[in-house]
Amino acid sequence: MPTRVAVVGASGFAGALAAQLVQRHPHLELTAVTARSDVGRRLDHLYPRYRVAMELEAFDPDRVAGSADAAIVGYPHGAAAPVVEDLRRRGLKVVDLSADFRLDRERYERYYQPHEAPALLGQAVYGLPELHRDELRDADLVAAPGCYPTAALLALAPLREVTRDAVVDAKSGVSGAGREATGTTHFVSVDENVSPYGVEGHRHRAELEQELGDGGAITFIPHLLPLDQGLLASCYVTPTHELSAADVRELFRAAYDGEPFVELADTPPGVREVRDTNICRVHATVEPATGRVLAFAAIDNLWKGAAGQALQDLNLMLGLPEEEGLA
Amino acid sequence: MPTRVAVVGASGFAGALAAQLVQRHPHLELTAVTARSDVGRRLDHLYPRYRVAMELEAFDPDRVAGSADAAIVGYPHGAAAPVVEDLRRRGLKVVDLSADFRLDRERYERYYQPHEAPALLGQAVYGLPELHRDELRDADLVAAPGCYPTAALLALAPLREVTRDAVVDAKSGVSGAGREATGTTHFVSVDENVSPYGVEGHRHRAELEQELGDGGAITFIPHLLPLDQGLLASCYVTPTHELSAADVRELFRAAYDGEPFVELADTPPGVREVRDTNICRVHATVEPATGRVLAFAAIDNLWKGAAGQALQDLNLMLGLPEEEGLA
Amino acid sequence: MPTRVAVVGASGFAGALAAQLVQRHPHLELTAVTARSDVGRRLDHLYPRYRVAMELEAFDPDRVAGSADAAIVGYPHGAAAPVVEDLRRRGLKVVDLSADFRLDRERYERYYQPHEAPALLGQAVYGLPELHRDELRDADLVAAPGCYPTAALLALAPLREVTRDAVVDAKSGVSGAGREATGTTHFVSVDENVSPYGVEGHRHRAELEQELGDGGAITFIPHLLPLDQGLLASCYVTPTHELSAADVRELFRAAYDGEPFVELADTPPGVREVRDTNICRVHATVEPATGRVLAFAAIDNLWKGAAGQALQDLNLMLGLPEEEGLA
Amino acid sequence: MPTRVAVVGASGFAGALAAQLVQRHPHLELTAVTARSDVGRRLDHLYPRYRVAMELEAFDPDRVAGSADAAIVGYPHGAAAPVVEDLRRRGLKVVDLSADFRLDRERYERYYQPHEAPALLGQAVYGLPELHRDELRDADLVAAPGCYPTAALLALAPLREVTRDAVVDAKSGVSGAGREATGTTHFVSVDENVSPYGVEGHRHRAELEQELGDGGAITFIPHLLPLDQGLLASCYVTPTHELSAADVRELFRAAYDGEPFVELADTPPGVREVRDTNICRVHATVEPATGRVLAFAAIDNLWKGAAGQALQDLNLMLGLPEEEGLA
Repeated sequence: MPTRVAVVGASGFAGALAAQLVQRHPHLELTAVTARSDVGRRLDHLYPRYRVAMELEAFDPDRVAGSADAAIVGYPHGAAAPVVEDLRRRGLKVVDLSADFRLDRERYERYYQPHEAPALLGQAVYGLPELHRDELRDADLVAAPGCYPTAALLALAPLREVTRDAVVDAKSGVSGAGREATGTTHFVSVDENVSPYGVEGHRHRAELEQELGDGGAITFIPHLLPLDQGLLASCYVTPTHELSAADVRELFRAAYDGEPFVELADTPPGVREVRDTNICRVHATVEPATGRVLAFAAIDNLWKGAAGQALQDLNLMLGLPEEEGLA
Repeated sequence: MPTRVAVVGASGFAGALAAQLVQRHPHLELTAVTARSDVGRRLDHLYPRYRVAMELEAFDPDRVAGSADAAIVGYPHGAAAPVVEDLRRRGLKVVDLSADFRLDRERYERYYQPHEAPALLGQAVYGLPELHRDELRDADLVAAPGCYPTAALLALAPLREVTRDAVVDAKSGVSGAGREATGTTHFVSVDENVSPYGVEGHRHRAELEQELGDGGAITFIPHLLPLDQGLLASCYVTPTHELSAADVRELFRAAYDGEPFVELADTPPGVREVRDTNICRVHATVEPATGRVLAFAAIDNLWKGAAGQALQDLNLMLGLPEEEGLA
Repeated sequence: MPTRVAVVGASGFAGALAAQLVQRHPHLELTAVTARSDVGRRLDHLYPRYRVAMELEAFDPDRVAGSADAAIVGYPHGAAAPVVEDLRRRGLKVVDLSADFRLDRERYERYYQPHEAPALLGQAVYGLPELHRDELRDADLVAAPGCYPTAALLALAPLREVTRDAVVDAKSGVSGAGREATGTTHFVSVDENVSPYGVEGHRHRAELEQELGDGGAITFIPHLLPLDQGLLASCYVTPTHELSAADVRELFRAAYDGEPFVELADTPPGVREVRDTNICRVHATVEPATGRVLAFAAIDNLWKGAAGQALQDLNLMLGLPEEEGLA
Repeated sequence: MPTRVAVVGASGFAGALAAQLVQRHPHLELTAVTARSDVGRRLDHLYPRYRVAMELEAFDPDRVAGSADAAIVGYPHGAAAPVVEDLRRRGLKVVDLSADFRLDRERYERYYQPHEAPALLGQAVYGLPELHRDELRDADLVAAPGCYPTAALLALAPLREVTRDAVVDAKSGVSGAGREATGTTHFVSVDENVSPYGVEGHRHRAELEQELGDGGAITFIPHLLPLDQGLLASCYVTPTHELSAADVRELFRAAYDGEPFVELADTPPGVREVRDTNICRVHATVEPATGRVLAFAAIDNLWKGAAGQALQDLNLMLGLPEEEGLA
């Protein structure tokens, strides 16, 4: 019997894709889609290409709990915490796509705001399977990582023991900025353009520091690109001792051997190569002239950077094959 | 009386723009456009938007010398050197857009190939006015810098005394890859994509090392973006001693005060802001969490990165106002 | 002495470009820029590439009249009429970019809404110089045509005597949809997409009918394309009697001989060829298999479709050379 | 037991997608991929996102016949006919993606060239299931329609009895122009551009005339757009007698009721909505002001316009469920 899953916050880009992925998953049943906007509209009218012919409902925790055993929550940070609390209290397993349960309380409140449901933080697992697979199997609450940290962590984690000194120059498509129509997401602002943003200190640095361990100096600068789905993290790492390209390859091979969604490539990856997939494609080498380690990771920000990873997490939480519904 | 100028190699992107800039310059007269391909075709049929209604001729050094006092050469590296030699021997002042005269012989032959006209290297000036203005005023042969080094040097030069340790993550539009139709420049390869290339050691690093001085560790990685004209150099610099954001601003102010084509911006630049201009827009600051200096420089790769800069050089060589024809 | 010009409504795409064109015009002086939003911000912070270093003021008709002899008004339809009335009452010559004075009252109220300043309609001239040049020389109030009608009329006007039966399939870049951030202008809605809109009856048809004369059957369907500036009108005309390609070429040659901003091309035009120019590039021929006349017109919707044409109108109204400031 | 399928000509855009679709099809087995270029390279190195880890072989009809029961041929027109003949002689069922078997001999030789395998024309079925489903079930040789005719025919076929007088303004992404790197497919040629081509008489008109019946006047003009996958046919039809919007909706409902891959939409379709699907999304209505029927059809040119349709054809030929492997 399939597990019944609700997507709460299904009108945004990540939530809508999550609804589609649940709908086509052989062992899950999509039982409800809720939203804060567009209530009463059919999801396939908002997102024709996902072909989810269900009507968006207003969020009612009792109704959701009555129809679902698990939920994926696609609310913005701050708004997610109380909703997650409502659903956890009613016994649902939850994957949350927001930042609300990704960080320890101290970090969260430094980078974001006072936490609305701190009691739940202890049970939340950081949903990057490549780093936390075993904990995810027992988890009832999972915080799916942000798209930027997902790519950056997969590029940097194999080098953790070598160094925590890194520059991450990250480049994202516009879907990562969300569905809200703003000056930033206006076509004319993005088209034929590229620019850095968040230069004063982007919040995603917090996830990198937490997951890689303290004591390093991680520069993280995001850039917005004129494309829809895709994210590339170009990481420049100064190792504490000399490494050959073969050493680096071996570190990555050891880290990701057998990983279903990490692909080690012989050449630098492009985001086109992973579009509409849950794959993170990684290339790592050493720059001969400087000895710096170069590690590039490409993902689809809506898949491995959001909804796809949420499904991967949910598969682990439910004891299903990790790749189910994502191939 | 206007100076008569020929553009040799006018069928490529940079050469064609140079022809337009010469044509509309109030003190220059465009007297010939030559090319290796498309001989006999009108330049405004190849590039309607430049509106240069002249026919492309095969290159004949005597004909060019008979009709012009100066030339801009837009050939690929290797092919440029003999043509430049022909024109210099006939007394023309030359701005060369290729790499052939940018580097000292040792560096050139290490990064490129045996030099075809080494005797001329001594008289060539590196055509970045912000670093070599006085030498340019007396020059008969100028090597216009590459588009990547132009942006990177303008971002890094004010920090030369602080450090030569830098990561340059550079992002370029496709016009920088030239007019040749290849798998790389095919629309379908670039669209909805971003990827690094030249990871094993890009030649433009040579110009950075030569101009910034030895002893540093400069990482330079270019990326190809789905846009036409525009180049952003994101530079990450680890200073040898602590600098405040105010210190950094002052270094840049001191370096570029009065520069006609360098604009210091309060916010990170986007390449749209300089499209079809000769301006380099720079923003520099310090990342509070790590103390790294962040310096971003945006140019139009065909203007300040090629043809516009060549005109700026030519203005200096001819004793004309530096901004003439470029405003 | 230059004519002093204010741009009222300078924060939108067309108004901002108009401000730049006025600023760089040798015989005009830009004395004020006003806006309904962004008051107090500098225009070059909103639009860095136009480099107009003036602060946006709130609209005050007395202040504008005190500093300017003429105005370009860039308000939306409905909002423009009262502002134009204010300025006309104070004696300024006005070019209005909205639809408010383009149509006779009956047509306007059928397609738009009750007219706010009907008394002025009698003095307004439709600002397409190729059709109304003489009237424009004496005009105090000019209604610049919409971008779609500009391209379509320039493609269809030479065929007026042959037929008024036409299909206009028009394709526009996103800047034509204006600066407002909406679901329609969100990058993710437009990117990798093309779709028709306004299928039920687009207002721009009214201008076509008025200018081409009644009695025809003009289908007009606009499409939104993933590009910034550019508009192509593909017109399919069934002539009442057989025409050869030579006949068609002669009709267009006769209509546009000597026109400074209409370019007759031997091959179908692309919008890139006219980007950032005031040129309309037209190609007309006959389809051998069906005898239909095919006429294609490409413009830059912000230039010949809005601000550039407004300057061309203003040049005529002020007795200046028609091409001044637009070459 | 799965049917063994070879893809002959798998290095082009349509052939490569066909290989992927065969590989992931539950009742087919991909046994060989051949190509004229890139022999010896792995297909997943050329097209990482399709993830077909097979090596491209040179075409050898005996080897192909030894390993496969059916083939999809992705050669250009002219080159396809002899290869199809080779494979048919060896007993393979064939779906050909070229134009070689789409037209009767007279039309083919008028629009293309002398036919290389005219004897086979009698057994070829035009592979548009919505028009020829029953014939396809018995076919051994199917000519998959071109991408332009697929969209245009699905928009026009329900109106066949009403009129054969139509203007088709078609707009295609660049993947439709194929993998060859040319001036036309260079990113810089396409980006920020739109232009018509083939104005003098595009070959795809031949398929429209053949399938819709003679006696009409069909104008067909293709345009190239700055996007990768997607094709929109905007069709303007002058009916011989007055039709209401309801009449038109009923004609389309009757024509496509139960069709698995035709979606009738209440609003004009965008190509994004069908990207990476085999769906043709159609909207048809009547323009009130003129009485013209407007019919818009959007497809993914590589799916329903090529490889997806080939799989749909193959499913029919093999007696498999028509939607298998395409949902």
